[in-house]
Amino acid sequence: MALDSDAVKPHDRLAAALADDMEAVNALIRDRMASEHAPRIPEVTAHLVEAGGKRLRPMLTLAAARLLGGDGDKAVKLAATVEFIHTATLLHDDVVDESKKRRGRPTANLLWDNKSSVLVGDYLFARSFQLMTECESLAIMAVLANASAVIAEGEVLQLTAAQNIATTPEIYLQVIRGKTAALFSAATEVGGMVAGATEAQVGALRSYGDALGIAFQMADDLLDYGGSEAIGKNTGDDFRERKLTLPVILAIARADAEERAFWLRVIDKGDQRDGDLDHALALMRRHGTLEATRDAANDWAARARMALEGLPDHPLRGMLSDLAAYVVARLV
Amino acid sequence: MALDSDAVKPHDRLAAALADDMEAVNALIRDRMASEHAPRIPEVTAHLVEAGGKRLRPMLTLAAARLLGGDGDKAVKLAATVEFIHTATLLHDDVVDESKKRRGRPTANLLWDNKSSVLVGDYLFARSFQLMTECESLAIMAVLANASAVIAEGEVLQLTAAQNIATTPEIYLQVIRGKTAALFSAATEVGGMVAGATEAQVGALRSYGDALGIAFQMADDLLDYGGSEAIGKNTGDDFRERKLTLPVILAIARADAEERAFWLRVIDKGDQRDGDLDHALALMRRHGTLEATRDAANDWAARARMALEGLPDHPLRGMLSDLAAYVVARLV
Repeated sequence: MALDSDAVKPHDRLAAALADDMEAVNALIRDRMASEHAPRIPEVTAHLVEAGGKRLRPMLTLAAARLLGGDGDKAVKLAATVEFIHTATLLHDDVVDESKKRRGRPTANLLWDNKSSVLVGDYLFARSFQLMTECESLAIMAVLANASAVIAEGEVLQLTAAQNIATTPEIYLQVIRGKTAALFSAATEVGGMVAGATEAQVGALRSYGDALGIAFQMADDLLDYGGSEAIGKNTGDDFRERKLTLPVILAIARADAEERAFWLRVIDKGDQRDGDLDHALALMRRHGTLEATRDAANDWAARARMALEGLPDHPLRGMLSDLAAYVVARLV
Repeated sequence: MALDSDAVKPHDRLAAALADDMEAVNALIRDRMASEHAPRIPEVTAHLVEAGGKRLRPMLTLAAARLLGGDGDKAVKLAATVEFIHTATLLHDDVVDESKKRRGRPTANLLWDNKSSVLVGDYLFARSFQLMTECESLAIMAVLANASAVIAEGEVLQLTAAQNIATTPEIYLQVIRGKTAALFSAATEVGGMVAGATEAQVGALRSYGDALGIAFQMADDLLDYGGSEAIGKNTGDDFRERKLTLPVILAIARADAEERAFWLRVIDKGDQRDGDLDHALALMRRHGTLEATRDAANDWAARARMALEGLPDHPLRGMLSDLAAYVVARLV
């Protein structure tokens, strides 16, 4: 899985290739995020828009549409729809996680309040819904409605799995499918649908998005124990929040009695002391769970690349493939 | 505006007339509220379903559909959709209002936590969205998408208007259109649409729902100062929460300097002492603002009844008309 020799990140190459479309997406987002009547809405949404973010999901929609020969207005609307759903979930996530920072800036719930985050999130959901009705495809709406339900279900599952050391790798997979992969796969799937792709092509795009999302989230969860300021998180955030991510789940599965007592204390009971994070890392290294997580992420990235094989030969296909490789290349 | 001589409440007569349909709606709600993967979801939703509620909104959809000669599966799905949207907003409202009781029972945010209420609300929104895609009408989806946006916008507006004594009757109208009338009017409108009503009939149903919702909310806001345990609220809840409802807005508009200082202290600054509620009530009585609110509610109820005039002569039309009368008859 060698990276493309090009030193420019695949994400940036996608952004360059889709620059005109993305400009239209950003203009549409700015336009539809506004609210005539409630000034709090543009305040909060402007904060989020200015914070930037990679706009990865709308690019996936646009890339899938272009790769299958689609273009124009509807792909742009769907790309904005996907970003709206994503932004709405971020607003609600920050309330649920009581987060203080997002993309290196204070979160909306901190700058305003939880109430504003909940209600502006609802507003963005409704706006995403209005946007997608404009695409006039019931099949596409069904995909996005389904993705929204899987996302919410995954979030609730994560909530109840939190701090529960009985969480299995299967539950973890279901959680990250909900929190990340469901929207990735809906993003690529509707891109293909709006371009009039065949059922097999749409299926390939869906599989790509699903596998990419899983690889992406596993990598993210691993990096939380690998220490990288670049992603705007601090090492051990998940540990302090007692989140059951794969490196920890596997370490618990492989723990002896004494180690199990440690995990019970720090994760279940939440009694964390100085040096506990270092000890947790030592246990993960002892049982090779960081490597196992990296291997699993690599495996999903490979599946994502394989899913692309049946799709037309096109520079965008190469970039999507490189993107899947890049997501896990961060882990080397 | 004399009430129908029948002593049975119009709501109960509607429920009897639509009993079969409502049974199908309730079965569908139970079925779609479940979640295979996240057990917290059925826990929270069962709590809400058991709490009952009047199911007024789905009955409006069914009554509108039947009145225009529609029947069957799609009207039932839309009725359940409307109730899901309503339930989702209740879950989020209780988080925003930090409510402890709903329909005489502890709220979900109190029994579980705010996180569950936010995420299960999102799940119900997504499920409502799935349900309506099954009705296969883009025009109907556009109406419901638009209503969802107006609801969220109204909630944000209410948030920013809260505790602001500069709130005008116009802002109040916009807030209650969002929080109540938008879903009432969407409920009746889509009922007509699914029954294949003419544009004029759909317009009449929309106007009926809008006016009914406004009358209903004004009556509710007035009853908060009129004292009725029957609606599950305590007299003065809105006062203690420093909500700007019409009786207070009008009293502030008619206040002299001393009265204005009082309102500034209790609403804007939130410095409330023993006897303040009684004094507020005395000021409202002095300026006749309770009567003015009742008159406004009566006026909207009359508009609702007038809107029905162009619709077919049918027992359900009579019940809808009586319902509008009943909403304000509580105020006599």
